[in-house]
Amino acid sequence: MSNPAPFNPPVRSLMGPGPSNCAPSVLQSLSKPMLGHLDPEFVRMMEEIKSMQRAVMQTKNLMTFPVSGTGSAGMEFCLVNLLEPGDEVIIGVNGVFGGRMCDLAERCGAKVTKVSSDWGRIIEPQQIADALKQTPKPKLVAVVHAETSTGALTPVEEVSKLVREAGALFLIDTVTSLAGCPVKIDEWGVDAVYSGTQKCLSCPPGLAPVSLSERALKVATSRRTKVQSWYLDVNLLAGYWGEERVYHHTAPISMNYALHEALRLVLEEGLEARFARHRENHLALKAALDVMKLKIMSQEGHQLWQLNAVQVPEGVDEAGVRKQLLTQYGIEVGAGLGPMKGKIWRVGLMGATSTRDNVVKFVQAFGDILNAGGYTCDTKAAVAAAK
Amino acid sequence: MSNPAPFNPPVRSLMGPGPSNCAPSVLQSLSKPMLGHLDPEFVRMMEEIKSMQRAVMQTKNLMTFPVSGTGSAGMEFCLVNLLEPGDEVIIGVNGVFGGRMCDLAERCGAKVTKVSSDWGRIIEPQQIADALKQTPKPKLVAVVHAETSTGALTPVEEVSKLVREAGALFLIDTVTSLAGCPVKIDEWGVDAVYSGTQKCLSCPPGLAPVSLSERALKVATSRRTKVQSWYLDVNLLAGYWGEERVYHHTAPISMNYALHEALRLVLEEGLEARFARHRENHLALKAALDVMKLKIMSQEGHQLWQLNAVQVPEGVDEAGVRKQLLTQYGIEVGAGLGPMKGKIWRVGLMGATSTRDNVVKFVQAFGDILNAGGYTCDTKAAVAAAK
Repeated sequence: MSNPAPFNPPVRSLMGPGPSNCAPSVLQSLSKPMLGHLDPEFVRMMEEIKSMQRAVMQTKNLMTFPVSGTGSAGMEFCLVNLLEPGDEVIIGVNGVFGGRMCDLAERCGAKVTKVSSDWGRIIEPQQIADALKQTPKPKLVAVVHAETSTGALTPVEEVSKLVREAGALFLIDTVTSLAGCPVKIDEWGVDAVYSGTQKCLSCPPGLAPVSLSERALKVATSRRTKVQSWYLDVNLLAGYWGEERVYHHTAPISMNYALHEALRLVLEEGLEARFARHRENHLALKAALDVMKLKIMSQEGHQLWQLNAVQVPEGVDEAGVRKQLLTQYGIEVGAGLGPMKGKIWRVGLMGATSTRDNVVKFVQAFGDILNAGGYTCDTKAAVAAAK
Repeated sequence: MSNPAPFNPPVRSLMGPGPSNCAPSVLQSLSKPMLGHLDPEFVRMMEEIKSMQRAVMQTKNLMTFPVSGTGSAGMEFCLVNLLEPGDEVIIGVNGVFGGRMCDLAERCGAKVTKVSSDWGRIIEPQQIADALKQTPKPKLVAVVHAETSTGALTPVEEVSKLVREAGALFLIDTVTSLAGCPVKIDEWGVDAVYSGTQKCLSCPPGLAPVSLSERALKVATSRRTKVQSWYLDVNLLAGYWGEERVYHHTAPISMNYALHEALRLVLEEGLEARFARHRENHLALKAALDVMKLKIMSQEGHQLWQLNAVQVPEGVDEAGVRKQLLTQYGIEVGAGLGPMKGKIWRVGLMGATSTRDNVVKFVQAFGDILNAGGYTCDTKAAVAAAK
């Protein structure tokens, strides 16, 4: 075998479901010199990450840190630490990620009650209220805040009240919501939360910011059985991310540099300004889609700003359009997953990718491709609407 | 809270148990533009990683790829996929990492037979032979090839024959050995192997190169029970790293860039040349230690080239020496773990860190610090011996 050449990735506009584009200073931070995972300077930086992550998650939870894996490792972290065999859980399923939580909870030996909505719709608080009548004393209730597979934003604050009244722990998936729209862990009474770095934080994938409330932590530290994962056991991780600094595993040093810089940029912009930017660019895209007579498939009134699931019109080649966007315009958008395959394009406007320039660039390219493929729309008017 | 300043890590000579220093081109690769995890260019690069990883592991195993976590996630990947509740396993324990495997295997519900050696000593093949008499039909036998906590290299090839005869699967930990000394997965008849990126591969921590033989893969794909980890389930991971490219989790893109470049550099240097370099620099360090009347604690004849466990002489302040090395000379060495705490310094010569210049620089600094602290040794002669 001859040795491959150095890899030089093309420059893309990453307008899919993540990863999003990273700010230049985030990419540059990755190249900084390596440090040991117990180096006093690295430890100092870990404290800054924890503190900034708390600010972005709007929580005072001490157990707030990035798990050394991608968002799904964050999901697994929450479930394996909180669940034991025989526990009853209620999980909202309105897309891929609710389904994944059910799979994972079952691997923990839990008895899962699924609360399902059609893909694209939210989990209605009333559905959780009904489920709580059937399973009045669950240990945990979990919902996906922002479903990346459909672009629907479930009103978790309303669900939280019901869960509290039932005395259960409340877990939410904020992989796509965090740093793109309000996520208020303490105000909403959330006990466990996980996210990913590669969405609205605009950091490369590889870490999963998580947070556990004191109540959740108490459950995790007073289990009957050992956590089934060693890598994700919070009882062990607390020794490294806490004050003792006991070696557990070797933290991904460079990825933590990147998260530090990405969190810094979020706070520098300010949460409210960042949310407003995400909202405005979503509205600009939506205005253009209206002109093009294209629809967002997720429930009106609950559409995500950072992920737009655009319905593929009758007769249009979904994969062909995606391929042309990528190869001719350097724009990546996402395909539909599961039952949405071939039915939607997922257009992400996350973090650094959420700019008016990107919206306009996308609308122009998208309109041109659709018209060339036989779907007639007024690209010029759509671009004007987006500006 | 005021926003922290950008983080600028100091430049260190990383001569501990890992992470090691990275080559400049590896660090630069991390800053390259982000790509989607299903981008055709990224997928092409994944194939190159798999192919290069096979070359470095000296295997033809198709299921050879990097797990999206650090070395310990690689350990967990192997054990959760191969073990089911009630399975019998034999694990060699001669340091921290054998102990960690026992903990993990127990979390999988396995019945663990520990084969223990004193820390610093190897697992003797005869010990495995004896254990096989007590537990004649184990599902799996596992040993640590290179114990990072003690610097001992167990002769796994000899163990392998015994394991084969017993019809068990053979698992080895090559976190510290891979790319620093011979690791011959196919020739040695190893069924499952995991490693880390931050040791002799000189890539940042964050990925765990793993490989499963066809035999091991068959065990993992024909289980009675689901794998207890979703994140590490090879039945799901195979869909992404195999030919289907089904979305599982979002791969850590930048970390894969770095691994691609690190593997490239290993193959460019050549395995034999790389091993020789590690050996020579170890011998240079050992010659200097001899002059200084300092001993390596691991078993003579089985001492690792890449990690040297130097015994702390009577009356010398172990932590104080380490701190001075770091703060005055920018040299990181490791402390002893568990029962070795305060008794050894772990001096790593891994990957890009393994240079004669680093050996000399370390010997000079170390000798100066020891002499200032009351341990008399001939630093000048030691440096001469190292050159």
